[in-house]
Amino acid sequence: MTQGGALALTMGDPAGIGPEIAVAAWLQRQQLPPFFVVGDASAMTQAARARGVEVAVLSAPPGVGELPAERLPLLPVNAASAPAIPGQPDPANAAATIAAITGAVALALSGAAAGVVTNPIAKSVLYAAGFRHPGHTEFLAELCADDAGQAPTPVMMLWCEELAVVPVTIHIPLAEVPRRLTTASIIETGRIVARDLAQRFGVARPRLAVAGLNPHAGENGALGAEDAAVVAPAVAALQAAGIDAFGPLPADTMFHARARAGYDAALCMYHDQALIPIKTIAFDEGVNVTLGLPVIRTSPDHGTAFDIAGKGVARPDSLMAALRLAGRLAGASGAARP
Amino acid sequence: MTQGGALALTMGDPAGIGPEIAVAAWLQRQQLPPFFVVGDASAMTQAARARGVEVAVLSAPPGVGELPAERLPLLPVNAASAPAIPGQPDPANAAATIAAITGAVALALSGAAAGVVTNPIAKSVLYAAGFRHPGHTEFLAELCADDAGQAPTPVMMLWCEELAVVPVTIHIPLAEVPRRLTTASIIETGRIVARDLAQRFGVARPRLAVAGLNPHAGENGALGAEDAAVVAPAVAALQAAGIDAFGPLPADTMFHARARAGYDAALCMYHDQALIPIKTIAFDEGVNVTLGLPVIRTSPDHGTAFDIAGKGVARPDSLMAALRLAGRLAGASGAARP
Repeated sequence: MTQGGALALTMGDPAGIGPEIAVAAWLQRQQLPPFFVVGDASAMTQAARARGVEVAVLSAPPGVGELPAERLPLLPVNAASAPAIPGQPDPANAAATIAAITGAVALALSGAAAGVVTNPIAKSVLYAAGFRHPGHTEFLAELCADDAGQAPTPVMMLWCEELAVVPVTIHIPLAEVPRRLTTASIIETGRIVARDLAQRFGVARPRLAVAGLNPHAGENGALGAEDAAVVAPAVAALQAAGIDAFGPLPADTMFHARARAGYDAALCMYHDQALIPIKTIAFDEGVNVTLGLPVIRTSPDHGTAFDIAGKGVARPDSLMAALRLAGRLAGASGAARP
Repeated sequence: MTQGGALALTMGDPAGIGPEIAVAAWLQRQQLPPFFVVGDASAMTQAARARGVEVAVLSAPPGVGELPAERLPLLPVNAASAPAIPGQPDPANAAATIAAITGAVALALSGAAAGVVTNPIAKSVLYAAGFRHPGHTEFLAELCADDAGQAPTPVMMLWCEELAVVPVTIHIPLAEVPRRLTTASIIETGRIVARDLAQRFGVARPRLAVAGLNPHAGENGALGAEDAAVVAPAVAALQAAGIDAFGPLPADTMFHARARAGYDAALCMYHDQALIPIKTIAFDEGVNVTLGLPVIRTSPDHGTAFDIAGKGVARPDSLMAALRLAGRLAGASGAARP
């Protein structure tokens, strides 16, 4: 299922930088695994022509050997869309934006695509058009629901060549982290990370470094009770399940180069604990990988950037890193290092 | 007051790595500003002889021109001390440990020393001997109290060549951060940082980047109210006081190289938000600088490391960076960049 197809890249919000970075990445396609774009024909044609590129509108998902050599391969979505104006988000584009995601996931589930790489969307624009999912990742998980309607639990990993981090809690106020962090959520996240590192990244025995919640991992209770009460039991349970997890570790000393050599992924307790180190190290090259899904999914680690859309200054670095990692996970270039 | 004397380096806990890294630094003294050690003669002699170095026991604080060329200069403390056994902390050493700190600060306050560099102490050892201060830094501040007994407010800055960070709250559980962080504490910290960056570091108009508390700096309230309610008013007050402060900024995107070029110090809301980025970038070379005191004070950014004391493997990198920065702040090598 992962060998025959190319990667399906969604256009993202057509008023954002998605279309132009897709074109910019395609212009450097010799450095990337084979991919095609799923999206609105007019928006992609407009972005391509701005760079002197012609689009090849396909009628079916292409195999790797069927990609046109000199034209940007596009599988168009069957959804009405207003003309997209870069920098001007419009709920009228929501149907096409969603159709690109739905279409790409369906192709990956069927094996016609090797994996899904998603360009950024703006939730507020989709909400205004009736979208009801908490975010991009949750929508993808629902599209991957099994026959009984049960959606898998998606886990967000931020990845760069030097570091992989997984926040256990994500987009919640800091004050809610201590009360919403549970032993069960750390265990579930750790199990999914360990499984996908083994199955997708080819790490025989993944090592998970688990961060403490408090400064100095609580310093034996002097700086908070949660590390002993909530985090440590999760580490013990993961170990009991045969997973090479260790911690809770003081978070501030986990992320320098020598420390990073000791693990394959860091489980972090909250958003900034995970995102500060990886964005400090790899601001332009970070990749968002969704673990726990039946399909490969990566995305650039940035938003729609409406403020610079259409100006030709958006950098495709993170998208290119996302395409490269998806290609490695799909087996195109062998197993990837987490 | 800061030109005539050498730097006074305390020995720290004599059972920790302080004595041996002091000797290791002295062996590379040609790379460092002039300094002498304040501490227990037997502990320092023992550490020096382990490296084939002889100690010159001084009877008065030496001027820069009076430092012995070939022997480690030591100003002994007048306090009883047990023979220190590396790796075996002992409350019997507490009096000498404290006397070294007291003595060094007195020398700096009088102008006989250009500044104070402190080796690590272990609070638990000192507490067992009756020490009643919350920590090393608070003790230093009390030693700097004015004639009315009013101690200055010390501010901890972690510094390396690439980044300076200041945590507004420090050693408290994460759950207490949102309720203990106040607008007044951010303002007071920001004022002290701006003043010392100007007066000690020679930054004409210090730029302070202020981190948000919540992910994405609260995302307009969707991810927490404190950024708008607590942090933003502090930024406005600092600006009204003529300080070039800006924020609250999303913390995860503040610390990569391009972002760091936009400010002189980052004000962070809690321990790990400040210490994760600097220890990720500069694990061995980070320096702890205390701002807000009438004397210059730096220290290495690590602890006593009892587990490796006496084994000859402790790295003097952070202590050497602390000595270098203290020397720059004292004017020995011109103004330092924060």
